[in-house]
Amino acid sequence: MSTYTFENVRPMDIERRSFEIIGEELAEMGITLDPEKEPIIKRCIHTAADFDYAKNLVFSEGAVEKGIKAFTSGCSVITDTMMAYSGINKKAFGKFGGTLYNFMSDEDVAAKAKELGETRASVCMDKAAAMGEPLIYVIGNAPTALIRIRELYDAGKINPALVIGVPVGFVNVEFSKELIIDSDMPYIVARGRKGGSNVAAAICNALMYMGGGR
Amino acid sequence: MSTYTFENVRPMDIERRSFEIIGEELAEMGITLDPEKEPIIKRCIHTAADFDYAKNLVFSEGAVEKGIKAFTSGCSVITDTMMAYSGINKKAFGKFGGTLYNFMSDEDVAAKAKELGETRASVCMDKAAAMGEPLIYVIGNAPTALIRIRELYDAGKINPALVIGVPVGFVNVEFSKELIIDSDMPYIVARGRKGGSNVAAAICNALMYMGGGR
Repeated sequence: MSTYTFENVRPMDIERRSFEIIGEELAEMGITLDPEKEPIIKRCIHTAADFDYAKNLVFSEGAVEKGIKAFTSGCSVITDTMMAYSGINKKAFGKFGGTLYNFMSDEDVAAKAKELGETRASVCMDKAAAMGEPLIYVIGNAPTALIRIRELYDAGKINPALVIGVPVGFVNVEFSKELIIDSDMPYIVARGRKGGSNVAAAICNALMYMGGGR
Repeated sequence: MSTYTFENVRPMDIERRSFEIIGEELAEMGITLDPEKEPIIKRCIHTAADFDYAKNLVFSEGAVEKGIKAFTSGCSVITDTMMAYSGINKKAFGKFGGTLYNFMSDEDVAAKAKELGETRASVCMDKAAAMGEPLIYVIGNAPTALIRIRELYDAGKINPALVIGVPVGFVNVEFSKELIIDSDMPYIVARGRKGGSNVAAAICNALMYMGGGR
């Protein structure tokens, strides 16, 4: 049987206690986080139980402030997966007035993707761009979405309020992230292979909580 | 700028190519997977870009076969998060006739959790147990759900077809997983702190695909 013992923490205190443990272990590792980025980095570590996020998250200049401002001013959000969509705290998001979009299950997207031989995620970015409003792009899965975001930006077709670029995986994931880092869009990117819809949602939630979302 | 180059892979081939890369890197690490468990382990590595899943996944005797049989025979599923719910491939799941349940947003659950000072996830397990049918329990977030599953099992109130026990985090996560491993329920557990709703969904999808879900 286990040698782990039960830690008696009230439900409402579990998250706080988790962040405490993360802080203690970061200190043991000799890692000091930039206070502005700390709530975001810790929430990513929390969501994956993976301290790699202490090192792989890259922020454009002023990205945290811009991200908080975008959420709290009611900027709308496009996600590349239903999992990221699900993971975004609706109660917090609902306070600010933005709309949360996901087009991955739309029939026109599937048809267009098939016609063009592209991924649905990439076609979703075209559909988002066509709405003609600045958006927060939340990409937790598809590198092809990030690649398309860069193309749309270079073509002057979009002007993202923030790009959360944390797809996960093995094919073109690192390439796509570097394309975003190498742009002058505001971004938060998890460099390397790691990321995911859970991490994407965690970054959104961290920004909203920093902005008074709870 | 990045030194990564774009790998030209057709959308439909990205997943296959990812699994190839995972296989190659496992071989380089000298890791040989049990063929029966391989599709599950690789899908977890794929979903988190984290090779830790090559070592932390623990299976009860015959869990893979039991899991495949449960899904394909139309066993229903209860999840502890909307993210896990979202991540389960609905097209695959829909082939088998089971129902996918999630009670986390139910008002009676919130009220009961508040009344009892318990987590909503734990109350959700009581609600699932009360349905009186064998279920596949898919836990990607809440250790308290796993703890309750063990209590319900010990009390003779449930007889899970499979427990997918992969909560992630820092408070009682390891403790809760060992409780499942120390039982005689059929289980697939990610030992340690890691896991998550994405990993939980990945295990479901792997079992369904092995059972002909696509």
